[in-house]
Amino acid sequence: MEKTAAGYTYGTSQIATSPFSLENLKLLQQSMLFNDDDIKYLQMSYDILKDQTNAILDVWYGFVGSTPQLVYFFGNKSTGEPEGDYLAKVRARFELWILQTAEANYNQDWLNYQYEIGLRHYTIKKNKTDNATAVPIVNYRYIPALTIPVTATLKPFLASKGANVDDVEKMYNAWLKTVLLQTILWGQPYMKEGEF
Amino acid sequence: MEKTAAGYTYGTSQIATSPFSLENLKLLQQSMLFNDDDIKYLQMSYDILKDQTNAILDVWYGFVGSTPQLVYFFGNKSTGEPEGDYLAKVRARFELWILQTAEANYNQDWLNYQYEIGLRHYTIKKNKTDNATAVPIVNYRYIPALTIPVTATLKPFLASKGANVDDVEKMYNAWLKTVLLQTILWGQPYMKEGEF
Repeated sequence: MEKTAAGYTYGTSQIATSPFSLENLKLLQQSMLFNDDDIKYLQMSYDILKDQTNAILDVWYGFVGSTPQLVYFFGNKSTGEPEGDYLAKVRARFELWILQTAEANYNQDWLNYQYEIGLRHYTIKKNKTDNATAVPIVNYRYIPALTIPVTATLKPFLASKGANVDDVEKMYNAWLKTVLLQTILWGQPYMKEGEF
Repeated sequence: MEKTAAGYTYGTSQIATSPFSLENLKLLQQSMLFNDDDIKYLQMSYDILKDQTNAILDVWYGFVGSTPQLVYFFGNKSTGEPEGDYLAKVRARFELWILQTAEANYNQDWLNYQYEIGLRHYTIKKNKTDNATAVPIVNYRYIPALTIPVTATLKPFLASKGANVDDVEKMYNAWLKTVLLQTILWGQPYMKEGEF
């Protein structure tokens, strides 16, 4: 992936090693029926999605923006007004997240970055990357919940480039699994060691 | 629902009021695109599933039983051997959970029981209902993860009674949303107040 964005520290020395191991990642993936076929179909989605990321983000941001309990997390901690600069900076990284997810390269860098994303939703790093002054935490319940709108609204984009119905279904299912997997991993900072 | 099972305290005075409000439940459901149609399709699934619960549980227990990192949570805390009596008692309640989920009645009793289920996965009540001597907690990451195998394996059962393809898809999607919703709610005891 050649693109980058402010604060997108994937694969750099600026982020810590995930306390979650690659071995445990495999066991978690198994329990989600996530297999090599899912990797294949995620990678198939890369070329389909790469020129549609802006349109996808318009839909996702449209949904977040029109759902007060979600846009709340981008709101200034005093006034509650959504912070435009914060929204824009997250959006730029969100685009890379789409591409990275489609690359489906589940290595140590990937795992470390999941932990970093978790920290950025939690009190530990919320707002810091973007010097935002928004509310101090994303309540965890909303994170795995977003698996549904993210993947449901992605399906038409997966279908828009002529892939056959069966492949679209398999790409969608692979996306469903990996988004849920990632949102689960982002929960680690919210829980005590040994309970996550 | 007329059936019952040991420890199935849904709707009784034996369980506490959920610290999560019905108002917050609605906001969470909105963020998952869960709407009245989903309730309709869950309720449509009731008659389809009600005579298939044993066969469904055979599939689910087969999966858990053949996945060491999952059956682990039913394992004796000293020997690691799966506790048969514990497995059987949970299974009897799991059947009622299928029916209750298909009833899709999101009232205060339902919400209270979600909290109770969460406590039974967490250190606070794990093992207690069944006098089990298994490991003291279900690691949270595996709980929302099971949304995938539970719903993926349910789909053939939804399709097995002649419903049309479109209705099967809609029932499956409603199940996907509600299972994820429930597993999110079960996470509340794992997190600090204000972070869940």
